[in-house]
Amino acid sequence: MRDMQPSRRRFLKKSAAVAGVVASPPALALAAESASAESLPPAVVDNNSLESVLYGQRSRFVTTTREIEGRSHNTTPTTRPNPQRPSARTPLAELIGTITPTSLHFTTQHYYGIPDINPDEHSLMVEGMVDRPLVFTMDELRRLPFVSRICFLECIGNRPNPRATTVAGTHGRTGCSEWTGVPLSVLLREAGLKNGAHWIIAESSDGGRHTKSVPLAKALDDVLVAYGQNGEPVRPDHGYPLRLVVPGFEGVYNVKWLRRIKVVDQPYLSFQEHSRFLTPNPKTQRDSYDFGPNSVITAPSGSQQLPEPGSYVITGLAWSGGGTVRKVEVSTDGGQTYQEAQLAGPVLPKAHTRFYLPWRWSGEEAVLQSRCLDEKGQLQPTEAEYARYWNLTRAQLYGTIQSQLGHCNWLQPWKVGLDGTVTNGLAPTDVVVDVHG
Amino acid sequence: MRDMQPSRRRFLKKSAAVAGVVASPPALALAAESASAESLPPAVVDNNSLESVLYGQRSRFVTTTREIEGRSHNTTPTTRPNPQRPSARTPLAELIGTITPTSLHFTTQHYYGIPDINPDEHSLMVEGMVDRPLVFTMDELRRLPFVSRICFLECIGNRPNPRATTVAGTHGRTGCSEWTGVPLSVLLREAGLKNGAHWIIAESSDGGRHTKSVPLAKALDDVLVAYGQNGEPVRPDHGYPLRLVVPGFEGVYNVKWLRRIKVVDQPYLSFQEHSRFLTPNPKTQRDSYDFGPNSVITAPSGSQQLPEPGSYVITGLAWSGGGTVRKVEVSTDGGQTYQEAQLAGPVLPKAHTRFYLPWRWSGEEAVLQSRCLDEKGQLQPTEAEYARYWNLTRAQLYGTIQSQLGHCNWLQPWKVGLDGTVTNGLAPTDVVVDVHG
Repeated sequence: MRDMQPSRRRFLKKSAAVAGVVASPPALALAAESASAESLPPAVVDNNSLESVLYGQRSRFVTTTREIEGRSHNTTPTTRPNPQRPSARTPLAELIGTITPTSLHFTTQHYYGIPDINPDEHSLMVEGMVDRPLVFTMDELRRLPFVSRICFLECIGNRPNPRATTVAGTHGRTGCSEWTGVPLSVLLREAGLKNGAHWIIAESSDGGRHTKSVPLAKALDDVLVAYGQNGEPVRPDHGYPLRLVVPGFEGVYNVKWLRRIKVVDQPYLSFQEHSRFLTPNPKTQRDSYDFGPNSVITAPSGSQQLPEPGSYVITGLAWSGGGTVRKVEVSTDGGQTYQEAQLAGPVLPKAHTRFYLPWRWSGEEAVLQSRCLDEKGQLQPTEAEYARYWNLTRAQLYGTIQSQLGHCNWLQPWKVGLDGTVTNGLAPTDVVVDVHG
Repeated sequence: MRDMQPSRRRFLKKSAAVAGVVASPPALALAAESASAESLPPAVVDNNSLESVLYGQRSRFVTTTREIEGRSHNTTPTTRPNPQRPSARTPLAELIGTITPTSLHFTTQHYYGIPDINPDEHSLMVEGMVDRPLVFTMDELRRLPFVSRICFLECIGNRPNPRATTVAGTHGRTGCSEWTGVPLSVLLREAGLKNGAHWIIAESSDGGRHTKSVPLAKALDDVLVAYGQNGEPVRPDHGYPLRLVVPGFEGVYNVKWLRRIKVVDQPYLSFQEHSRFLTPNPKTQRDSYDFGPNSVITAPSGSQQLPEPGSYVITGLAWSGGGTVRKVEVSTDGGQTYQEAQLAGPVLPKAHTRFYLPWRWSGEEAVLQSRCLDEKGQLQPTEAEYARYWNLTRAQLYGTIQSQLGHCNWLQPWKVGLDGTVTNGLAPTDVVVDVHG
């Protein structure tokens, strides 16, 4: 979905020219030609260095990076990271497929930087309402049963600025990796749960001792104590050497630099949680931890440019904390009509799922948006449905600090202009919109 | 499966000590403690640099690299890459889960280095026995329907030295990625196939114009013209910007730096193929291109060390060109008895599949080996079965250049010594072994 060429007409014109030049040689010529040195060999990249053979590198033509965030959840990315909070968003528009390259996976730090942990000195304590408090070294954890699963992580504060100009700005606080680790249930069973145990508290090694309460039922279900991400050890900015992975739940549950699991009777609010992740608004103190169904078109998306009318694929990502994506539908007319999209790759529970829809752009204005239906039958809401559910006006919706509102999974429209420019299609906040339902 | 600790007894001893210190404080103490600055914050890694926030990096404690190969298929890794052939093996023993990190994925170059291709100047030609020869720019390819799939690649010359000391040495020419690209069937249908078309020839942009014939039935089945690997553009040493991915077939089919697809009537042997990938031995000129069922234990594996008797997991990878891995069995007594292993993660067709088996090492000698059963009912052969099939003696088996023999999927035993050292368990070639069948 890039610059150059495109209409079928131009395809054929080009092809005809090619046909005139090379279509006729006898079939064997190709093989013969291959053996000859008739043409100069192509230039060779400087990827023969010892370093790049030992640990492969990208092409010099590939320069995609994460988008750095500033200290606050504001809308203007800064150009320098905050040393205490080097957070950055996934460049969703540049992703291919469903796996987020670890180097491009969003990361959010909470004011205390990234701890420098020697894995030989790190351990995990399991204590509280258990029969046998236990301590596991990293080596011991690696000698226990384990699970690998591909799933998304998402910051509760994703959609930090629904009116941002790019999809990294609107939705860049999500990523999808293969996580590998020990099921937390294995550790809890080893320790033995006492009567009355209903929650666990997971605690980080970071300077702020970030903690999070997780319902025991979830902890015994599919939570991982993960040491691997996309085939290698979890990276420092993702929790090296150990993090909790709580599939489908808000990102804040996925405690990094994990050092302690305490089994308790009820949820406890740590200072970190209380001060940064709860708002006095009772609407946000809800019982739901799973993210609802979500999706966003990544191409064409904001600030991209369609070079000319013609054939395209509309593509994007869909995901749901509720399980597997059952269906994605795409509208090119702002929600008046929808067509079912193709799911392009692995369709796994609680994982980013890539979709696409072939589309012929006529050159007229178009508004592109997608909606996700998950295996529970949950349908991604329109903006109006979302606002009604929380009893918020549009102005309130966009005036709220998104990280406190959370779960901002209403549809994201992208508007294609007559000149092919793509812009955020959300209406201004002073406009009452209730047509997508 | 690393150094330190481990018997259950020592587990409990340690845990008891911990319990004495921290098991008693009231539950709320954890939360209160979190808010205080009672302890010094941990050291912060130097991952706050602009560079590492833009494109994430590994922990300084993680230094795994690929293993560089020399010019020839010999057994001694050189320490410096050959500029024309910077090939390297996957460090299988260090992988976690099923995805091979792209930077660690094996790569094999054929004497002409890695072409330095500007994607804006690259195109793919589809010609030969077609109605409409076509040329696609990279941008045009990105505007066509696509598929993402996770699958393994493997060099036909994997098992270059079955007697190597490490699993990277014995099996390191395989890797598993999420590949994304246009189904070749889409391009061939767009071009229109003429009567009599039965094969395609795929041609590389490299200095040697590497080419490979692929049966048309396979080309129309699941072959991809791939531009994406693990979420980002294919890397230069994997074919940037475009490569063929032929799931389940020998690696040599997966033509890198792809520039031309020619539809033909029969297979043709290019100079490259003829000189390097065929042997006069008629036994290897067979009709099967799919890799058979294979598996190997990656831990404990050669040159690792078990610190002491106790609880471990035996883990490894299984895969088959025949489809999905149905079952993996592990023996700890050299094949006399087997137990079914757990499959730890995504079980996808023609993909690496992670397995593990909890195992208590008594301190006695043990011989660990795994065998894979695929969805077609194909069982990974023992060495004796393999030798019988090809009518080779053991001496011949190990005397043959592996890259010409190919498909060396017989079982790999690792021997655990009384001192916990792990060595290659294949018997010397002058010993007649026929007991694993």
